[in-house]
Amino acid sequence: MPAPEPAITVADLGERAVVARIHARVPPPPAGVTVGIGDDAAVVEPDRGALTVVTTDTLVEGVHFDPILGSTADAGHKALAVNLSDLAAMGARPRYALLALSLPASCPIADVDALVDALVALAARHRTALIGGDVTASPGPLVVGVTAVGSVGRRRVLRRDAARPGDIVYVSGALGAAAAGLAALRTRTEAPGPARGDPGDPPEAASGRSAGPAPDARPGSGLEGCVERHRRPEPRVSLGVALGRNRAARACIDLSDGLGDAVHRIAAGSHAGVELDAEALPIDPAASAWFAATGLDPVLAALDGGEDYELAFTSPPRFRGRLRHVRQQIRGLAMTPVGVVTKDPGVRLRRGGKDEPLPRGYEHFSPRK
Amino acid sequence: MPAPEPAITVADLGERAVVARIHARVPPPPAGVTVGIGDDAAVVEPDRGALTVVTTDTLVEGVHFDPILGSTADAGHKALAVNLSDLAAMGARPRYALLALSLPASCPIADVDALVDALVALAARHRTALIGGDVTASPGPLVVGVTAVGSVGRRRVLRRDAARPGDIVYVSGALGAAAAGLAALRTRTEAPGPARGDPGDPPEAASGRSAGPAPDARPGSGLEGCVERHRRPEPRVSLGVALGRNRAARACIDLSDGLGDAVHRIAAGSHAGVELDAEALPIDPAASAWFAATGLDPVLAALDGGEDYELAFTSPPRFRGRLRHVRQQIRGLAMTPVGVVTKDPGVRLRRGGKDEPLPRGYEHFSPRK
Repeated sequence: MPAPEPAITVADLGERAVVARIHARVPPPPAGVTVGIGDDAAVVEPDRGALTVVTTDTLVEGVHFDPILGSTADAGHKALAVNLSDLAAMGARPRYALLALSLPASCPIADVDALVDALVALAARHRTALIGGDVTASPGPLVVGVTAVGSVGRRRVLRRDAARPGDIVYVSGALGAAAAGLAALRTRTEAPGPARGDPGDPPEAASGRSAGPAPDARPGSGLEGCVERHRRPEPRVSLGVALGRNRAARACIDLSDGLGDAVHRIAAGSHAGVELDAEALPIDPAASAWFAATGLDPVLAALDGGEDYELAFTSPPRFRGRLRHVRQQIRGLAMTPVGVVTKDPGVRLRRGGKDEPLPRGYEHFSPRK
Repeated sequence: MPAPEPAITVADLGERAVVARIHARVPPPPAGVTVGIGDDAAVVEPDRGALTVVTTDTLVEGVHFDPILGSTADAGHKALAVNLSDLAAMGARPRYALLALSLPASCPIADVDALVDALVALAARHRTALIGGDVTASPGPLVVGVTAVGSVGRRRVLRRDAARPGDIVYVSGALGAAAAGLAALRTRTEAPGPARGDPGDPPEAASGRSAGPAPDARPGSGLEGCVERHRRPEPRVSLGVALGRNRAARACIDLSDGLGDAVHRIAAGSHAGVELDAEALPIDPAASAWFAATGLDPVLAALDGGEDYELAFTSPPRFRGRLRHVRQQIRGLAMTPVGVVTKDPGVRLRRGGKDEPLPRGYEHFSPRK
């Protein structure tokens, strides 16, 4: 498929043509969609007997993604991924998505195409239909808003406030990869970065940068996996659905703002406490090495690092049989016990026989870098 | 209730405090909401036997609203209103809404409070529960995204592509008021405008402006109603629901981009044509006078003017009895026959016995002013 001239912008095409172009890139809606893209609103058949789950999350250029560090395709993938992650944390199966784009007039139409294609590709993998949205001009940065709609059985809902003392705290996958990937990307782009529209091509400039002894993220340095995790997080849809269906978890939350923040929220919501075991945390090995090399404490960096989009959940010891069923259904994704829910409120990090205060995760408006 | 210091910004408070503050301004969720604000996603009970209707629409500061011409409270009202209007155009009753805010760090928290309060007030009038959302920092303009969820009976859905030749085209309320109100606001703020945060107070500066003979919109000039229509459009929820319930309309669409655009969309979607009768159009009298005084053709200006958020619908003559029921249920809102659906494709404006080409409505990215 020949790419359009990079010079063609959304302003050149106009709103209607942009909308028509997006529509053309979306596969026809599945059964259950009574009215899809193109009317005032979308109309769908709710799943019989199930509850409807709705979430919305917005990515802003310059805050959640950066044309220097990634492509608009990454932004399209991620905008849907973070919403599917929210559905997964409720135990819900994703069904539908809506896309709201606020586009600078100068935005190349090829970037919009790439964004939509990446979003649609992720949607297809999770049997999620893009059924509507909104395109508008903006004098500001590119803003990508996604609303995701899912469904969950009546007694299968996973809340974040349902943990009980004695529950074991589990986390899926590995921690810290996305944070290390982002940090590595930032380090290597301290030298003049790639132009917008050509972000996938890492610059050769690492040797010229002014930063200290940090390893860079060029291919082969071992951090490419972390960079990929930052750019294209994988929502744990199957895990969330399996936890709900098997009623294998009490509380569940996704790690958008880091495990530290997540357990604070579970503890506060459940009127309980959490004690995490530092030695048990499944920190991504490449991320751990990167954190250590840049002078950070790998444990605290991994707890504090947002955007891993793993799930944390609590489960009493007697649910072990249910968890075994879950493990069989999610094949290959690790679920690691990392702590316990306590009666005492507050969150503690147990390390070397001592308790440490546990930092909370990333907060917008108050950058701490 | 004492207003907070105007100097306090969202950056001063931080993301969590802003979210908590919004949450505190939202009434507790009604029955049917299993999980409301505060978890990864909201969980609701779908209406038994009904279809789910979902829509999302975004307002961008500097494009859809302007701190010089209105308040953030207006923006909060309007962001929900345009979404409720989309639901109404499908015949759907609104049930739930989600609010996605992208906030500049310098945004006064009082502006956020006002925005949320206005949105919640409109939501309450239409029994719509705010069940979730997202707050994020932005280096750009204030962006207000709303997703609205409604429900409609299986055979009550109003589409825009279901018109048939011989249907009568109706429009609710009056046309052109919002466009005239916006134009009047722009004229009077050509002189130095009010500062942000104090936009409700019209400046005394109209006499000093450089514009020509246009009447201004100061209280008493007759345009205040038009200004109010621009700032606080009233979604035609009862009408849309009544049209669906009584199965009194074939096609329906809302007038977000003007009646001209709306009939083009109905005609194209329905593979038919529309002939509008210029003399029958219910143009707002104050707007008509304003258009004439500024040298515009009131008919074309009213057809072209967006943001009226009235409904246009088509209904065959034999549905007259059903329309009578609708009229009884909506009490007081005019429904005016303004044309007919034709077999011949294309859209024509009949005026003084002649056909004229009909302009299409507002298009983003390509401002025509």
